[in-house]
Amino acid sequence: MNKEIHLVKRPEGTPTDEHIQIVNGEKPSPAEGEVLVQLLYVSVDPYMRGRMNDTKSYIPPFALNEPMAGGVVAEIVESKYDGLNEGDIVTGMLPWKEFSTAQGDQLRKVDPALGPITYSLGILGMPGLTAYFGLMDIGQPKEGETIVVSGAAGAVGTVVAQIGKIVGCRVVGIAGTDDKIDYLKNTLQVDEAINYKTENVADALEKACPDGVDVYFDNVGGDISDAVYPLLNKFARIAQCGAIASYNVPNDQGPRMQMHLIKSSALIKGFTVGDYQDRFQEGFQHLSKWVQEGKLTYEETIQEGFENIPNAFFGLFTGENLGKQLVKVNEPSQK
Amino acid sequence: MNKEIHLVKRPEGTPTDEHIQIVNGEKPSPAEGEVLVQLLYVSVDPYMRGRMNDTKSYIPPFALNEPMAGGVVAEIVESKYDGLNEGDIVTGMLPWKEFSTAQGDQLRKVDPALGPITYSLGILGMPGLTAYFGLMDIGQPKEGETIVVSGAAGAVGTVVAQIGKIVGCRVVGIAGTDDKIDYLKNTLQVDEAINYKTENVADALEKACPDGVDVYFDNVGGDISDAVYPLLNKFARIAQCGAIASYNVPNDQGPRMQMHLIKSSALIKGFTVGDYQDRFQEGFQHLSKWVQEGKLTYEETIQEGFENIPNAFFGLFTGENLGKQLVKVNEPSQK
Repeated sequence: MNKEIHLVKRPEGTPTDEHIQIVNGEKPSPAEGEVLVQLLYVSVDPYMRGRMNDTKSYIPPFALNEPMAGGVVAEIVESKYDGLNEGDIVTGMLPWKEFSTAQGDQLRKVDPALGPITYSLGILGMPGLTAYFGLMDIGQPKEGETIVVSGAAGAVGTVVAQIGKIVGCRVVGIAGTDDKIDYLKNTLQVDEAINYKTENVADALEKACPDGVDVYFDNVGGDISDAVYPLLNKFARIAQCGAIASYNVPNDQGPRMQMHLIKSSALIKGFTVGDYQDRFQEGFQHLSKWVQEGKLTYEETIQEGFENIPNAFFGLFTGENLGKQLVKVNEPSQK
Repeated sequence: MNKEIHLVKRPEGTPTDEHIQIVNGEKPSPAEGEVLVQLLYVSVDPYMRGRMNDTKSYIPPFALNEPMAGGVVAEIVESKYDGLNEGDIVTGMLPWKEFSTAQGDQLRKVDPALGPITYSLGILGMPGLTAYFGLMDIGQPKEGETIVVSGAAGAVGTVVAQIGKIVGCRVVGIAGTDDKIDYLKNTLQVDEAINYKTENVADALEKACPDGVDVYFDNVGGDISDAVYPLLNKFARIAQCGAIASYNVPNDQGPRMQMHLIKSSALIKGFTVGDYQDRFQEGFQHLSKWVQEGKLTYEETIQEGFENIPNAFFGLFTGENLGKQLVKVNEPSQK
């Protein structure tokens, strides 16, 4: 038996249990050049909501009645690929199935000596690289400038906030629980943190950004971004990483924002981490150096059990996770 | 007597006669280093609507009960400035008064040998430079790409459309009258022209852009831009020059567009021509070369009479002008 998590209905708004079903499949066998892997950790990420829609995007939609998929850490249980052996820990994009086969060359081996193996799904993986390239390449922060980060306590936001401090900027984080605000202020040492659920964001931002906003790293869009736009300084840069506030709202409407861009000669650039594929090594080098130097700390929220993957995913949209949200499916056979 | 056009009330929506008043002032006298000029031609431009609001922008608001102001061509009638003589034709930013004084060094002498003196308010002035830098610096068009231009028959749009053809792109123009569509297709030789008042813009754009949109030069914002965003190609560039559709609509709402930017890793950059002040010579050189080679044609809509300046300005918002809208106030004393 091999449990799988299928998309069975496309959500219009917020995804719930009715859109997802756990089904039993067969344990596959690897062909030549392939490996059989067992899931250890599954990453759940906001961008997956987009793949539940049947629309053209940078990544194709999930098929109905097929497994959903995403970044995972897994262990090789059988290998017909030269570069990987039984017991190796790997990371890659795999379906949400307890056991899967994959082309060996589509997986990246994780060295457990470099840190917890889950880091390859976070600070030393796609979220870390997303933060690094969005902030450094699009945001182009200069010492002394003000950076605002929305979704500041999430997997990407926490890294952005810390890099912002490393490069000498004033960092203002926006998040939605008191625990997150406390974490941002006291652990990540940002200059100001705003709870968008209890504070008037526009007023709080104006107070937190007395010199305006030079860089906005935006994970959320929606009302929060509406409150940032009027504060943009001349030649401000916005890295548009996500828009989670709009993901579950069909035809989401809001104030038109082109005027703000004209007034401040500001730039917005949408991006996904794949845009920087050629520069991943540069990103890994900076991130792992900062981790080793203790300049980047990292938080994970881990649920347990394959059947809790959907709940962990749904929780992203109610703001439950602090840092990277993972689900632990199995222990590695050797620790 | 010296007629002046004053802003007497700030409009909430569309500006009308109630917001503007023609008053009689005194003919001023130039101080040392100043000149006295008489207006010949007045440029009316959409951006002036923003200056009627009492809000912070890249250019300060017009004061109440003071003259409005903008780009003009004028003739020196008295000079206390060494570099300019009676009879010289100059261009600069001046108040809407038949006679004004100005610092001599704030004016640029127009050489009538280079073409009609009105060109300094259009193709060889701010609108031409706006088109050149927005398209070339932000749009970065590559041969064979598709450029969409909104407000394509206006002072800026007509230049953008033609430069787009010069650099070897497919150019699709959007405008609002059959005359403008005819002008775009038959005089400017764009590949497709869409009348947004009579056609379904989304459908027409999809047909006109079979390979998607690589560059969008946006003068209008609003519904028209909403129809362009879904067609953006990977790494598309949007030069956000204006948003005339929103200027007269307080708190204008529309679909949120961040998702489109993420899906296509697209860029929007707001700008004003002043951002490129250091590179004006480069722009003038290219534009005047293309004019001399006959590659850039140029259209003006000219109303007559100082008292018609308000009507010419109001007409910008109902889409009456083809090409650059000017008002002729006086003949030069020597032709």
